[in-house]
Amino acid sequence: MKLHREKRRKSLISAERLRRSGLALSFRLKMEENGKDKGPIVLALDRIPEGSGDLLSRSIAILEKVHPYVCALKLNRHLVLPLGLFSGIRRIVDKAHNLGLPVIMDCKINDVGYTNRVIAENYFNAGFDAVIANPFVGWEEGLQPVFETARRLDKGVILLVYMSHKAASEGYGQKVLDRETNKLKPQYVVFAEKALAWKADGAVVGATYPSKIREVHEILGAKVPIYSPGIGAQGGDLKAASEAGSKYFIIGRSITLADNPAEAAKAFREAAKRLM
Amino acid sequence: MKLHREKRRKSLISAERLRRSGLALSFRLKMEENGKDKGPIVLALDRIPEGSGDLLSRSIAILEKVHPYVCALKLNRHLVLPLGLFSGIRRIVDKAHNLGLPVIMDCKINDVGYTNRVIAENYFNAGFDAVIANPFVGWEEGLQPVFETARRLDKGVILLVYMSHKAASEGYGQKVLDRETNKLKPQYVVFAEKALAWKADGAVVGATYPSKIREVHEILGAKVPIYSPGIGAQGGDLKAASEAGSKYFIIGRSITLADNPAEAAKAFREAAKRLM
Repeated sequence: MKLHREKRRKSLISAERLRRSGLALSFRLKMEENGKDKGPIVLALDRIPEGSGDLLSRSIAILEKVHPYVCALKLNRHLVLPLGLFSGIRRIVDKAHNLGLPVIMDCKINDVGYTNRVIAENYFNAGFDAVIANPFVGWEEGLQPVFETARRLDKGVILLVYMSHKAASEGYGQKVLDRETNKLKPQYVVFAEKALAWKADGAVVGATYPSKIREVHEILGAKVPIYSPGIGAQGGDLKAASEAGSKYFIIGRSITLADNPAEAAKAFREAAKRLM
Repeated sequence: MKLHREKRRKSLISAERLRRSGLALSFRLKMEENGKDKGPIVLALDRIPEGSGDLLSRSIAILEKVHPYVCALKLNRHLVLPLGLFSGIRRIVDKAHNLGLPVIMDCKINDVGYTNRVIAENYFNAGFDAVIANPFVGWEEGLQPVFETARRLDKGVILLVYMSHKAASEGYGQKVLDRETNKLKPQYVVFAEKALAWKADGAVVGATYPSKIREVHEILGAKVPIYSPGIGAQGGDLKAASEAGSKYFIIGRSITLADNPAEAAKAFREAAKRLM
């Protein structure tokens, strides 16, 4: 516990030093600070309800209402494909930054390294602070160029460890042979170990599987924070995920489709704060 | 062999019937026809060399030069992210269609089903004829909505089975426990079996691993054609891939960065035809 406080003090000093030096905070430090100030809810701006105005203005309107209650924004192809990265999306990213929120691109990178680098560079150039990637693709000519690009630009890489959907057990839950020990291990344990070894800035574990969160948290400790999607619409429970070790909670439709998105976000934040 | 000829005759009849009925050919049939007419090379328009004109016009210029020697076009995030799906990319897709080429989107779908459906719908709405997806994500709330969307619109789904990069062995090459038989199996065998069970329109196996192509071809036979990227720049060999069972060869930089892209594409096509 003392060690933990010491680490936290150092991280705050380092954040303060960076700010005074005029350098941008790294993604990881921005998340730490925002998490403390604004609570642990990450807004997923995926499904945007119909209404007056175009998709871009409706998306920004929700962000403007919800921003006091969330610590970061996560975007996915729901908006990137119709709006375009360097037109509409860049405006949402700029708006989020003006509101003090880092922005995560949930692109689940899983191509060959040469292409992964191009994908990461494009998202980082458009202003994103972190990308989500799939460790299944491996390191050499796989995710190595993504981590290199992120380190060079002070951006973040978050790895998928166990997803929130039903068929997650088919891949993330399968048993695989560990080449070193010649023993069987769950795939998500292998992925959590990669997240640790590769110094990822976060690990995604679906809130729909609290027992998996607990197992992954035992491997990662405080070194790699757990992000949990799947709360609300997908059936995940904030309390169970929090008790199991999730640090950030990614919430989409339960906020964006609520009658009052700001109230919904605030309620999730208050519930999360009571658990901390 | 007789059975094979019979199947082919039926497929031609069915293509002819569809054409006469005024309905669009399915992706699978378009590929069959084009492969016979124009050879088995799929152009990957990824890396576009610098030159006069913007990225869009340079991309279309290469397509115009190369189209007589290829049977399809494949796009990836190299162009989608900078050009935007419903602006620049749509123009490239329309141009390819005017030149008689189906267009494959190499988006390696691997999200939850709800998002996968949105991704597939966006690409299909922009005119793409097929999407590439990662079977690691599983079926229920995973790739099921992608296959459903593709079937409804007569589009194609191609599954990753073994990729072309070095670290492919980490994920695609790992040994996994088969739940039914309780025996260890290579991951790519599991994926090939999913491609068969889910009636995929193609399976991607890197040309850099001919022995894997052979193993996968033994499982898939003529039911699911093998697409092999990684020829040229990544070190894969057309002859070895063809002899092992690949049906289509995805070639990018070795054509787009050649001094004369048309000549390069033609040379690959002639080499491939000699092997058939």
